Amino acid sequence: MFYVVGLGLCDEKDITVRGLEVVKGSARVYLEAYTSILMVQKERLEAFYGKELILADRDMVETESDEILRNADTEDISLLVVGDPFGATTHTDIILRARSLGIPTRVIHNASIMNAIGACGLQLYNFGQTVSLVFFTETWKPDSFYDRVKENVDLGLHTLILLDIKVKEQSEENLARGRKIYEPPRYMSITQAVSQLAEVEESRRGGTLTPDKTLAIAMSRVGGEEGQQRIVSGTLAELLAQPPEVFGEPLHSLVILGRRLHHLEVEYAETYAVDKEIWRRVAKDVYGCVLE
Amino acid sequence: MFYVVGLGLCDEKDITVRGLEVVKGSARVYLEAYTSILMVQKERLEAFYGKELILADRDMVETESDEILRNADTEDISLLVVGDPFGATTHTDIILRARSLGIPTRVIHNASIMNAIGACGLQLYNFGQTVSLVFFTETWKPDSFYDRVKENVDLGLHTLILLDIKVKEQSEENLARGRKIYEPPRYMSITQAVSQLAEVEESRRGGTLTPDKTLAIAMSRVGGEEGQQRIVSGTLAELLAQPPEVFGEPLHSLVILGRRLHHLEVEYAETYAVDKEIWRRVAKDVYGCVLE
Repeated sequence: MFYVVGLGLCDEKDITVRGLEVVKGSARVYLEAYTSILMVQKERLEAFYGKELILADRDMVETESDEILRNADTEDISLLVVGDPFGATTHTDIILRARSLGIPTRVIHNASIMNAIGACGLQLYNFGQTVSLVFFTETWKPDSFYDRVKENVDLGLHTLILLDIKVKEQSEENLARGRKIYEPPRYMSITQAVSQLAEVEESRRGGTLTPDKTLAIAMSRVGGEEGQQRIVSGTLAELLAQPPEVFGEPLHSLVILGRRLHHLEVEYAETYAVDKEIWRRVAKDVYGCVLE
Repeated sequence: MFYVVGLGLCDEKDITVRGLEVVKGSARVYLEAYTSILMVQKERLEAFYGKELILADRDMVETESDEILRNADTEDISLLVVGDPFGATTHTDIILRARSLGIPTRVIHNASIMNAIGACGLQLYNFGQTVSLVFFTETWKPDSFYDRVKENVDLGLHTLILLDIKVKEQSEENLARGRKIYEPPRYMSITQAVSQLAEVEESRRGGTLTPDKTLAIAMSRVGGEEGQQRIVSGTLAELLAQPPEVFGEPLHSLVILGRRLHHLEVEYAETYAVDKEIWRRVAKDVYGCVLE
């Protein structure tokens, strides 16, 4: 059997009991290192599982899937992925490959940012499509995400924005020379994300992401312990004005609020507001939310 | 500390290792019975946890939250919920209440149908808002969900439709006489859901849910073992024509496909198609998906 096991969001204890049993019973266990980064290192997982883990970057999962699947028809092989196997990055290709080789597969689900984002207090069924925001460079500022956010905002829906992660990035020089030397991982900060949103709003002028009229919630290390998880809510202008350390350690996510806003959602997120009065005023006056 | 612990989707082993530790260490453990129904009984959970569980229906969580929260400032109290604490039904009110009493809270996330639905092979970020479909009666056929589905379809997005569950329902007579006698639980079947969609399309004629041109994926017991989990894909007309047992046991969910369809998504779900040729033809001709 080929298992794809979701590890959840934070550390070694977020695996499910079933997932842990599968890991312990597997002949080989791969750990996918690309998608996003757990808050703990491989060694800590290995100690907890009592198992050696084989690191598999995204390249390997894509190009060497047959090696990962070797003997999975006769023994149990697991691939561990951060979050849920069908979360932000899906693992449909390797499962399709297993199927074509006649290997039975099973997915062990877990929390992913796509549902845990509900921790900010907004109702998941009022979220529209999810968008990704990539690092802008001097010459490359892809802004098609703006159209997606606008579609959501026009319908009154919330938007989860996933912030870019650069892992195994090569410098232009190393790339040109074919040297497999990689830069340290980079995670987009809330400050950078909000400033990129402002830049795109400035050029598009669609009125979708107005600095002082758009409410947003910044989240970091969702699902983490008190002190690790951080939630900060405010207008885009307020978030931009915060010192970066307010938002905690990566990974970060950002939610743009839509007009379909229940007063309980506003009250829940008010706890995390930069300025509670501004938060309530914008929710009332701009979003039309009826507050007590 | 007041913990809200997600149990995941299927049975006692879907709890996370952290969640299990919290349960074992809690002075009182409540099990919320309303939201949806695990595939196992309370007794099996109790045996696995080595703990007695106090059943808390939705009424109790809403109206007797202070009893649930009693002493949570000095000892650990847990509330167990199916799926994720911020999934389809959220638990913001009791957390807000805990906060107002000065009780520290922590949420232990898990998979919910809102992310595990990715198991059908569709990319989660191409889903629009989620809608709920309630049981129609002779005199009450609320169809506002149709507008929501149309909004998604018009943008080319997929829609997750959550099917109604009736738990602790009273007959009109028992309700009138104030007798707390409850009907057995009812779960909407795929057949009933698809036939309600057809009925609303018939009256609205918005072209959003055309029987032979709309692709859909029916899912049952998502995350369950081979044999428990069922996935069936096809046009709405094809799904309606299937004998009900094809769809497996409740709980069921239904996904309506949007036009933003990647060929990998089509191929992945083709495995589950009532008729692979029709599936591919509609994906190509109606949805405009480029297949090899």
